[in-house]
Amino acid sequence: MNDRKLFLPEEARQLIRGGEWSKPTSGLANGYIQANLAVLPKELAFEFLLFCQRNPKACPIIDVTEPGSAIPVLAAPGADLQTDIPRYRVYRNGVFIEEKADIADIWTEDMVGFLIGCSFTFEEALLENGIPIRHIEEGCNVPMYQTNIPTVKAGPFEGPTVVSMRPMPEKDVVRAVQVTSRFPSVHGAPVHIGNPESIGITNINNPDFGDKVTIKEGEVPVFWACGVTPQAIAMHVKPEIMITHSPGHMFITDLKNEKFSVM
Amino acid sequence: MNDRKLFLPEEARQLIRGGEWSKPTSGLANGYIQANLAVLPKELAFEFLLFCQRNPKACPIIDVTEPGSAIPVLAAPGADLQTDIPRYRVYRNGVFIEEKADIADIWTEDMVGFLIGCSFTFEEALLENGIPIRHIEEGCNVPMYQTNIPTVKAGPFEGPTVVSMRPMPEKDVVRAVQVTSRFPSVHGAPVHIGNPESIGITNINNPDFGDKVTIKEGEVPVFWACGVTPQAIAMHVKPEIMITHSPGHMFITDLKNEKFSVM
Repeated sequence: MNDRKLFLPEEARQLIRGGEWSKPTSGLANGYIQANLAVLPKELAFEFLLFCQRNPKACPIIDVTEPGSAIPVLAAPGADLQTDIPRYRVYRNGVFIEEKADIADIWTEDMVGFLIGCSFTFEEALLENGIPIRHIEEGCNVPMYQTNIPTVKAGPFEGPTVVSMRPMPEKDVVRAVQVTSRFPSVHGAPVHIGNPESIGITNINNPDFGDKVTIKEGEVPVFWACGVTPQAIAMHVKPEIMITHSPGHMFITDLKNEKFSVM
Repeated sequence: MNDRKLFLPEEARQLIRGGEWSKPTSGLANGYIQANLAVLPKELAFEFLLFCQRNPKACPIIDVTEPGSAIPVLAAPGADLQTDIPRYRVYRNGVFIEEKADIADIWTEDMVGFLIGCSFTFEEALLENGIPIRHIEEGCNVPMYQTNIPTVKAGPFEGPTVVSMRPMPEKDVVRAVQVTSRFPSVHGAPVHIGNPESIGITNINNPDFGDKVTIKEGEVPVFWACGVTPQAIAMHVKPEIMITHSPGHMFITDLKNEKFSVM
């Protein structure tokens, strides 16, 4: 099964489009950026893009479609956001309605698709630098928490930052900051190191999203802004319609991870 | 006259607002980011922001106001874009109409203000690294050229990149790339080094905007994407109204240059 890592993005998307791949995309087409999806009505698009622009750590924009177009021309000009994600979630007026394998039947001329960076990219870089990642070791989802770190509001979009947490030995913390600083387009440097309470997390063993992971004696929790933030915040605005990917079922772009690193 | 460098941004903006400073802002409130201004109707705002997002080297966004608001809440929450720039230019349907000292009388609820990074920031960094800047030595404007480097289109916004040029001895070129790479929010690394013809510039001594500067024997021309690009491109769309700063008369933000550097 390891050769799925070697798929090119176009091959992986073809499997997904054809219904042959409906599982999470972690490990598919290794080395290529995967992205979170948020589809919103055009009338909210300017202020949502502005929100992302003002909160680049939580909402690093990879690509945005033109109104009515489902083609991410920068990230994957041969792809179609209506069909190329294994599982979608549909929300109406802020309420979860259904999960779907494609959204061609509900896509309208009025929609704008936002692709937002995800942590898969910097996790690969952490692993390459010899920093183990607990939720991968334990085969579960990364733990995520609501914090008291405010985002910068834009129009109706406002609320707290959601963070993901990766515990690590003290000796790895500096290197983890350095490695992830090189990837500002996929969340970048941590937003917090250490004491969870100083960012409003009262019980580190009870994440708001994802799964609990083991924090070993002497390990430090390190927190990164999380791509769930814009989805959680958009939901509060109760848009008439909003479509997202289903957790872990990401959009695979044609962009190489390294393209998004800075010096 | 050197103490104007020591002004705080708020002090400098107060002089401008009171009509006591109507000259170019170069050297005012040293160490703080100065920005290009483009004001556009809300109906064009999403696609213009998308254009900037897709062309970050030419159009590095510093801040964007909410529709109708003239307050750049991130860049300078105490400022007012209607009054805090020494000279404005007003264009209607793509035609230059007038230059004004403030725009309070023509500002409407329908307008969105875009602040776009300018090269003053990275020029300060070049100077600090011992790289001389010819147009500063010669007391004129930086030379700017239309190129054959396409921008990535968004909605009606499309066209070629405008670049600025700084000649330097070969020995300084590597350092100039390193220094400006640290400032992706103010144009970042050069887009081209050397032969002007390979980017469509036929006569280096005849810039399309700004002034000609001396290129000495053995010097290499180095080209950076220029903040004139989004203005030039927006003009082609012939928006009902568009307001910009007058060249050299920039908006002074509260943001320190160093805040915009990356590691």
